[in-house]
Amino acid sequence: MYLEKVNGPEDIKKINKQDLQILADETREALIHKISNAGGHSGPNLGMVEMSVAMHYVFDSPKDKFVFDVSHQSYPHKILTGRKEAFLDAAHFGDVTGYTNPNESEHDFFTIGHTSTSISLALGLAKGRDLNKNDENIIAIIGDGSLSGGEALEALDYAGEYNKNLIIIVNDNDQSIAENHGGIYKTLKALRESGGKCANNLFESFGLEYKYLEDGHDIEKLVSLFESVKGIDHPIVLHIHTIKGKGLAYAEANRESWHAGGPFNVEDGSPKFGDWTPDTTVFDSLVELIDNNEKAVVLNAGTPMGLGFVEANRAEYVKRGQFIDVGIAEENAVAMSSGIAKNGGTAVFGTFAPFFQRTYDQMSHDLCLNDNPATMLVLQPGVYGMNSNTHIGMCDIQMFAHIPNLIYLAPTTKEEYQQMFKFATTQKDHPVGIRVPGSFVSSGEKDTTDYTIYNKNKVEVKGSKAAIIAVGVMMQMALETAKKVKEDTGVEITVINPRFLTGLDEALLNQLKEDHQVVLTLEDGELMGGYGQTIASFYGDSDMKVKNYGISKAFHTDYDADKLLAENGMSVEQLVAYIKQYI
Amino acid sequence: MYLEKVNGPEDIKKINKQDLQILADETREALIHKISNAGGHSGPNLGMVEMSVAMHYVFDSPKDKFVFDVSHQSYPHKILTGRKEAFLDAAHFGDVTGYTNPNESEHDFFTIGHTSTSISLALGLAKGRDLNKNDENIIAIIGDGSLSGGEALEALDYAGEYNKNLIIIVNDNDQSIAENHGGIYKTLKALRESGGKCANNLFESFGLEYKYLEDGHDIEKLVSLFESVKGIDHPIVLHIHTIKGKGLAYAEANRESWHAGGPFNVEDGSPKFGDWTPDTTVFDSLVELIDNNEKAVVLNAGTPMGLGFVEANRAEYVKRGQFIDVGIAEENAVAMSSGIAKNGGTAVFGTFAPFFQRTYDQMSHDLCLNDNPATMLVLQPGVYGMNSNTHIGMCDIQMFAHIPNLIYLAPTTKEEYQQMFKFATTQKDHPVGIRVPGSFVSSGEKDTTDYTIYNKNKVEVKGSKAAIIAVGVMMQMALETAKKVKEDTGVEITVINPRFLTGLDEALLNQLKEDHQVVLTLEDGELMGGYGQTIASFYGDSDMKVKNYGISKAFHTDYDADKLLAENGMSVEQLVAYIKQYI
Repeated sequence: MYLEKVNGPEDIKKINKQDLQILADETREALIHKISNAGGHSGPNLGMVEMSVAMHYVFDSPKDKFVFDVSHQSYPHKILTGRKEAFLDAAHFGDVTGYTNPNESEHDFFTIGHTSTSISLALGLAKGRDLNKNDENIIAIIGDGSLSGGEALEALDYAGEYNKNLIIIVNDNDQSIAENHGGIYKTLKALRESGGKCANNLFESFGLEYKYLEDGHDIEKLVSLFESVKGIDHPIVLHIHTIKGKGLAYAEANRESWHAGGPFNVEDGSPKFGDWTPDTTVFDSLVELIDNNEKAVVLNAGTPMGLGFVEANRAEYVKRGQFIDVGIAEENAVAMSSGIAKNGGTAVFGTFAPFFQRTYDQMSHDLCLNDNPATMLVLQPGVYGMNSNTHIGMCDIQMFAHIPNLIYLAPTTKEEYQQMFKFATTQKDHPVGIRVPGSFVSSGEKDTTDYTIYNKNKVEVKGSKAAIIAVGVMMQMALETAKKVKEDTGVEITVINPRFLTGLDEALLNQLKEDHQVVLTLEDGELMGGYGQTIASFYGDSDMKVKNYGISKAFHTDYDADKLLAENGMSVEQLVAYIKQYI
Repeated sequence: MYLEKVNGPEDIKKINKQDLQILADETREALIHKISNAGGHSGPNLGMVEMSVAMHYVFDSPKDKFVFDVSHQSYPHKILTGRKEAFLDAAHFGDVTGYTNPNESEHDFFTIGHTSTSISLALGLAKGRDLNKNDENIIAIIGDGSLSGGEALEALDYAGEYNKNLIIIVNDNDQSIAENHGGIYKTLKALRESGGKCANNLFESFGLEYKYLEDGHDIEKLVSLFESVKGIDHPIVLHIHTIKGKGLAYAEANRESWHAGGPFNVEDGSPKFGDWTPDTTVFDSLVELIDNNEKAVVLNAGTPMGLGFVEANRAEYVKRGQFIDVGIAEENAVAMSSGIAKNGGTAVFGTFAPFFQRTYDQMSHDLCLNDNPATMLVLQPGVYGMNSNTHIGMCDIQMFAHIPNLIYLAPTTKEEYQQMFKFATTQKDHPVGIRVPGSFVSSGEKDTTDYTIYNKNKVEVKGSKAAIIAVGVMMQMALETAKKVKEDTGVEITVINPRFLTGLDEALLNQLKEDHQVVLTLEDGELMGGYGQTIASFYGDSDMKVKNYGISKAFHTDYDADKLLAENGMSVEQLVAYIKQYI
C-alpha cells in the first residue's frame, strides 16, 4: 500500500521506480471508487493514471508547473497531490472540484474547464518564468480532441517560435468526447501507426521538436521519456498514446458513453440510479428539420450529445451529410453556418452557452454583419445551466442581444421553442438565436405565433398597477407571483413574455404607462448588461418605476439555482412583497 | 488597351492568354492611380494583380465563388468585375469600399474585414452548394499572415476531412502587416525554398492535398495551375509565392510601411500630405514600463504599430524579450497574458477594439475567472474608432463591462490614461482593461487618483438639478453642455466622469437624489447593453429621471462621427434643450 503514504509528489519520489505501477493501481482504485459512487469524467481520468504518477515522479511540482487542458483529466493528479481523501472517503467527495483549482492546492495553477487553453496558458507561465529569470519546467497536458480548437492551434504556432523550456504532452487516446473530426486526426493516426515516424509530422510542421511514446501506460517508459526532457531549453511535443477508460473494460470499449457520467456499478458499468431520460425536444426539432428539408444541416462542435445526437442515432444523418461535427471548433462552426446560409442551405449550429463565448467575433462579424439566416441554438444558458464557474453561461444575453441584425429569442415553453425553431429555420431574413433551456415546461397548446413580427411581446396575463416581464424560464415564477398577488390583494397584475431579447415592444411598453406604476423584469442570467436594463433605460425619464432582477456579477459556482435566484431577490415571496408596495 | 473593354470576367476570357499580362499591367496601373491618390491597402493589392487576372480567366465568377480573407487584397478583383471606374476616375473613388461587399457586386459574397475568416466561410459556401446539389468551385484566398489565426486553423483542420470541391489559395508573400510570427512560418519558408517539397508539409499534415507555385506573378503558370484544379472533387491547397507591393520598388523594399497608407507620389513613394505624426501617449507608457520593470512584457497580435511599435523602434525590445508579437492570434495573446501574470510577470496586451471581439472567451474564462492581474488595452473603441462596418468597435463595453473580476476603465484625458496605466501595471489584484481613445485631450495636470478605490467616480463639475455622466471621450461634450446651460440659465449642472465602467459609485448616485431631478448618460458606443443602462437600472424605481444616450444598434459604416453622435441626440445643442426641461 503506497497511496496511503503519498501526501504529495515528494512521497512519490521515495518509491522505487519498479513499484510505481503499484501506486498507479492504487490511484486507479481510488479514482474508480469515487467516480463509481459520485460520477465524473471517467474516461479521461482512467487514461491519465500512469502518466500522472510518472509526471510527479520526474518533475518537481509545484516548482515545475503542470497545466491541464480542460482539466477534466486531473483527478489522478489531485489524488497524488494531497487530495486523496476526496477520492477515498465519501464524506470528503465534495472537498474538490472536477477541475484544477488553485484554491485547493499549490499544485494547481488555473481554474479551467474550457478546451484548448493549456498550451497558451503554459506559454504564459513560461514567459513569466523567463521574465523572473527562473528555470522551472512548464508542462502543458492536452488531449488530442482539444487540439482542434483555435486557441490551441494558435498557441502551438507561437510555441513553434518560442525559444525556452516548454513541454507539451499530447495525450492521444484517439477520441474527443465523441470521435475526432478534422484532418489533423489523420496525421495523428499516421503518427501512431508509424511510431511517430510518418511523412508529415503535424507538430514539426508547427516548428516543434517531437518525441513519440506508444504505450502511455508503461510507467518506466514514461519516466524515461520525462527524464529525457526535464530541463530542456526549448519547446518539445511529447506525443503519448493512451487508452481512454483504461482499466475498466466497458469504458475502454464504449469510449463516448464513458467520457463522463453518473455513479455506476463497478462490476458491469450499469448505472446505479437507472438510465437518465433526456428531454428530446431539441433533438426532435432537428430531426424533423433534416428529414423534411434536404438542404438543411445541423452543425455541432465536439458535443453532439448536447443536441441529442448520440452514437446510436447519428450515423445515418452523418452519412447523408446533414449532421456535421467540426471538432471542438466553435469559431469555424459559426462562420461555416454563415456561409451555408449564404449559399442556399439551412444551417443550425448548437452548443452549450459557455462554449458560445468562443464565437463572439464570428457571431458579430462573420454571421450578423453579413445578415445570413443561420440558426444558433444556445443550450442551457443562465442559472439553470451548468453550475460550475468553469462552465458558467450566465452572460449569453450580454454577448448577443446587442449585436445588430440578430434576432435573439427566449422561449418560455416547449411549444414556443418549437414554433421559434420553425420560424428560425424557414425565414431567410436574419440570423436567429434561440436560448434553449435544459428542460421545458409544456403549455399543452401549439404555439402559432408569427415570429416575423419582430419584437412583439406576448401578454400572458393582462392586469394593472404592476407588470412583470419575465425572460424564458423565469415565466413560471412570474405567473406564480401574479397568482399570489391576486390571492392576497384581489388585484390582477400583468405578466409579459418578451420572447424577443434583441428589441423592445415599444407600443406595449408605452401602453403600460396608462395603468401601471411599476414594471419588474426577471431574468435568469447576469443583471448587469442584461435584458432588464434595456427596459429600465426605455422608461428612464418617464414616470414608470422599473425594478430589474437578475444574477449578481460573480463567477458563481456549485450553487443551488433556486437559492441563487432567491439571493438575488427572485422568489415568489420577495416579488409579492415588492409588488404590494404599489397596490 | 484591354482594361477599358473589361466589364466582367466574361470579357477577360476573350483575351488571348499571352496578352493577359497586358491586362494585368493595366490593372496595376489603375490600382496605383487610386491608391496613390486616395490611399488604401497598397502592398496586399499590388501582390494580387496577376493572380486576380488568372483567377477570373479560369474560373466562372459569380457561379464559382471567391472568398477573400480580410478582403483588403480584393481591389484587382473589383477592377476586373465591373468596378474599374472606382479606380480610374477620382469622382468615383468613393463608389466602392476597401473590402468585398455584396451590395456592390454579385462577385462579392461577404462583407469582411477581419483576418482568418475565408476558409471557414468558403467551407460554408461549399457545404451550401452540396446541399443544393450544385457543382461550382469555391475558392478561398488567404494570406500567409492570416494563417496564424485560430479561426483559419480550425477551418484548415475541418477542410482536411471535407470531401468535396474546395480550393484554398495560400497567397504567401512572407509577410503579415509586420513580419510573421509563429512556427508555421518556418515551414512555409522551407516549403518556398524547397519548391514545395520539404520534409514536413503543414497543409498535408492537416490532411490536405497540396501544390506549390514559386512565381505568383507568372500569369501563364497561374492559369495552368488553376486549370489543373478547376472542378476538383476534394479540397486542395495551392501555395503561391507572391511579392507584397509588386510593381512599386519602394513598396517591395519596405513591406511593413507599405501595407497600407495614405496618398503618395508615384515617382518615389513620398507621402502627398506630409508625414502623419502619431500620438505617442500609449507607446511612451509602454516603453516607460518595460524600461523600468524587467519583469514586464508588452504583447501584440500582428498589429505592433497599433501600440506605436514600428519597424524602426521595436528591435531592441524584441531582443530583450519585452515585446512579443504572437502573430494574428488574439486568443493566445490574452491567455498568455493571464499565464504571465500568474507566474509573476507584468503583462500588457493591446489591440484594436474590433479585434478584441476574438477574445471574449479568453477574457472571461482564461483571464478573469482566474483573476490574474494582466492589463488589456482596448484601442480606439467607439464612434471615433475605425468607421467601417468591417472594423467597427462600438461594443467593447457590452463585451467586457459585465465580466466578473475585470476592472474596466475609461480615461477622459491623457493624464488619466497615464495614471490608470500605472495603476493597472503595478497592482496585483485583478485584470484591468483600459479603453484607449485614438487621440487624447490633455488636462495639463498630472492625475494622482488612487484607482485602487474601485468604482469611485470623479465629479468634474458640482451643480444641481441635472447631472451628466459622460464616458471617456464624451466628457468634452458634457463640459461644453454644462457651460452652455450655465450661460443660458445661470444654473450650474453636475458633470461626472465615471472612470470605472465595471461598477457604480452608488454613494455618489444616491447623493445626487438630494438635489438632482435628472441624470443624462453619454457614451460613444452602442446604447443597448452599454454603461448608461446600468445607471437607468440603478435609479429604476427611484424618483430620479434618467436619459441614456448612445449609438443606435446597427453596423454603421463610413459615417462622420460627430454627425452620427448628433443623430443619436448627442450634440451640445440637443443636450442643452433636453436639460432645460428640468431647469
